Amino acid sequence: MAAHIYAALSRTARTGLIEEGTTALLSDLVLAALDLLRLTPREDLISLVPGKQYFAFSREGRVSRPVRRDLFDEQLVQANIARFNDGSFTQLGFDELKRFLYMFAISYCCETDLAGRDDRKTPATFFEYLIGNIFGRQLGVNPRKQVDVLNLDMRATLPTDFIFDLGAAHRRVHLPVKLSTRERVVQVWAHQKVLDGVYGVGRFRGVLTVLTETKLDKRTREVIEICLPEQWRVYQLFIAQLFRVYYLDLPNRYAVLRDVPPHIQVKELAEFFAEKDALISQ
Amino acid sequence: MAAHIYAALSRTARTGLIEEGTTALLSDLVLAALDLLRLTPREDLISLVPGKQYFAFSREGRVSRPVRRDLFDEQLVQANIARFNDGSFTQLGFDELKRFLYMFAISYCCETDLAGRDDRKTPATFFEYLIGNIFGRQLGVNPRKQVDVLNLDMRATLPTDFIFDLGAAHRRVHLPVKLSTRERVVQVWAHQKVLDGVYGVGRFRGVLTVLTETKLDKRTREVIEICLPEQWRVYQLFIAQLFRVYYLDLPNRYAVLRDVPPHIQVKELAEFFAEKDALISQ
Repeated sequence: MAAHIYAALSRTARTGLIEEGTTALLSDLVLAALDLLRLTPREDLISLVPGKQYFAFSREGRVSRPVRRDLFDEQLVQANIARFNDGSFTQLGFDELKRFLYMFAISYCCETDLAGRDDRKTPATFFEYLIGNIFGRQLGVNPRKQVDVLNLDMRATLPTDFIFDLGAAHRRVHLPVKLSTRERVVQVWAHQKVLDGVYGVGRFRGVLTVLTETKLDKRTREVIEICLPEQWRVYQLFIAQLFRVYYLDLPNRYAVLRDVPPHIQVKELAEFFAEKDALISQ
Repeated sequence: MAAHIYAALSRTARTGLIEEGTTALLSDLVLAALDLLRLTPREDLISLVPGKQYFAFSREGRVSRPVRRDLFDEQLVQANIARFNDGSFTQLGFDELKRFLYMFAISYCCETDLAGRDDRKTPATFFEYLIGNIFGRQLGVNPRKQVDVLNLDMRATLPTDFIFDLGAAHRRVHLPVKLSTRERVVQVWAHQKVLDGVYGVGRFRGVLTVLTETKLDKRTREVIEICLPEQWRVYQLFIAQLFRVYYLDLPNRYAVLRDVPPHIQVKELAEFFAEKDALISQ
């Protein structure tokens, strides 16, 4: 069932991430995943992350990714699903909005973990669709996934993460979307540096959006967060400047980067809706 | 047997990549791998790479990575193994040197493929040891794997690929080593950009060294090369400048990058020995 909805979502996403049909399929998929997860046993995990508790779903010997206990709120999604489709979910209170967004992201990812295909692409692509849809609806434009490089004697097309282009009156937004970053994160700053070089510094605002940095040790059932804050500071100083980093499950070791030079603005995704104009203003 | 030699190599490598003991274990390991591969059936692969033919070793339903038919020369290694240890292999003719280096890199990697542990870390680490040993012996110094970042109010240690530091009279060498690059390659330019930013442009020469870009489709037995030359040109123009890229199995689509702006110098690793002074000269 969920697989059929996902297939329909893949097709519809190609015609436009912010179209009504795409939005409806995203919420259908989350509801289908929640229906399956409701019947799935949960298992407490040993959290080594200060201040956060996690559980996992487990089925037929397989175990899902870790789920934040305080953010998992099925009732909230069931009661407000129509507000995802009409966009009024952004008016939920901050804590509810945080849980609502987290639920939308984590539910189908957990369901794919339990399907047992060892499939890393499907949850990553689903999360891209979801975040692309949310940002696109707020900014009022569908994203693109490539930019042209025209430079004297060469002409190339560079594949990128999402690019939102609202025309000359606004900054463009460069939106990389990742389930987690780990040691691959330097790519994000490198792509921002390419955009700065090709189009000029400040023309694209870099907005990295990430689900979580948790890692589950399946043997010991321990959950850790893998964070490299000192490396992020070096990248922000010496490669390029990201404008925002948004998390659905914000690691504390990244949240405090706001307070030390170069003051990388790492926040909850729920904060985006109140400051979306800052992303595109000149 | 090979596993025991690899364990000894891991221990010895920690005390110094260019020490005699490390060098001897590298050649022992290659000989042990060749002993095992000699008894292993070979299977022709369907090469979709113009001008190159590949085979694979296969054992108990497992198949190795692709091996270049014209570069696989066991006899050459057996006859010249002592020249690896005493360093005189660099005086082999160019074509023999190319085969000798390729054999040293590919033999143990194939053996690990057949061991069936789906182990991607061991061949990657072995290849790092091998290339670190070869460059280190030529430059006369052991590499380091981290650099300090001291910058006003921050102090961080950045993990890097190999760094060769011959003191103030010479350029430092930044040597990333990869079995293949694919879409992860932008990391190499990003790390070079960090070194340029922290220490100043031109202080570190970036020298990427790669085994191959082949990819085997295990179902169809087809071999392709995955190359992104237009992206490399954009990275070299807009992120940082690599001084050399050396390959053990040089893809033609990268070799021709020498001929178009920004003229990235992509070459056979066998060319390194004649131009090693250029890497470190001011």
